[in-house]
Amino acid sequence: MFSDDYFMAMALTLAEEAGEAGEIPVGAVVVARNRIIGKGRNQTEQLTDVTAHAEMLAITAAAQTLGGKYLTDCTLYVTLEPCVMCAGALFWAQIGRIVIGADDPKRGYSRLQPSPLHPKTRIETGILADECRALLTNFFGRLRT
Amino acid sequence: MFSDDYFMAMALTLAEEAGEAGEIPVGAVVVARNRIIGKGRNQTEQLTDVTAHAEMLAITAAAQTLGGKYLTDCTLYVTLEPCVMCAGALFWAQIGRIVIGADDPKRGYSRLQPSPLHPKTRIETGILADECRALLTNFFGRLRT
Repeated sequence: MFSDDYFMAMALTLAEEAGEAGEIPVGAVVVARNRIIGKGRNQTEQLTDVTAHAEMLAITAAAQTLGGKYLTDCTLYVTLEPCVMCAGALFWAQIGRIVIGADDPKRGYSRLQPSPLHPKTRIETGILADECRALLTNFFGRLRT
Repeated sequence: MFSDDYFMAMALTLAEEAGEAGEIPVGAVVVARNRIIGKGRNQTEQLTDVTAHAEMLAITAAAQTLGGKYLTDCTLYVTLEPCVMCAGALFWAQIGRIVIGADDPKRGYSRLQPSPLHPKTRIETGILADECRALLTNFFGRLRT
């Protein structure tokens, strides 16, 4: 059995790839039975598409792998707290569990009431949070210099 | 100049096509300068993808037409009040205006606080609402018989 840290490290690698491609560095993987069945990294610039967030791409990929829309027995690992759009998608997918790295007080879903997530979805926050946040801080720091 | 009713009728045609394909009948078009630059109909079943809502597909298509992510000078016409996911996408797109047919008290974005939409987005509701709602009522009525 791999740990939450292990899969978050996979998501972090995807986030780094996004940053190297000039995208805001966010990465996500969907795991079922200890196996990655979908992954994504932010590609909004490359694809000229605001919907191409890491989570959205990972959800779509996981559904293709499974051959079904619902991810009830899956865990999403994501380096940054999902935005409202991604939380809405995770609701429709009825994702079983979400593991979050850095929080996002400004754009994260958790500032909304009532919660946009599915009531059955379990949430874990703060996994490799420092590493996830450092990637974002460095990215925006570079942009400003 | 075409009217809001005109473009909503286009969205309704797309919604009908979705219903005929066995999808929940929702359709959407994105209009810029009186011209349709993106369209979508619900394809979640066909694509096995919870993210394939009419609005998401229309937003992505419009951005491709424009060659840019932002839809600040565009209007989205949609036959049903957008869900949280689609509202989140419309926020990122900074859509200028949203014209809505039927409301959706159960899954619509408007039950959330604070509003997930962009503060600059203007909203119009109730355009061809009876026709938009009838399509959904008939669809779910057929499912139940």
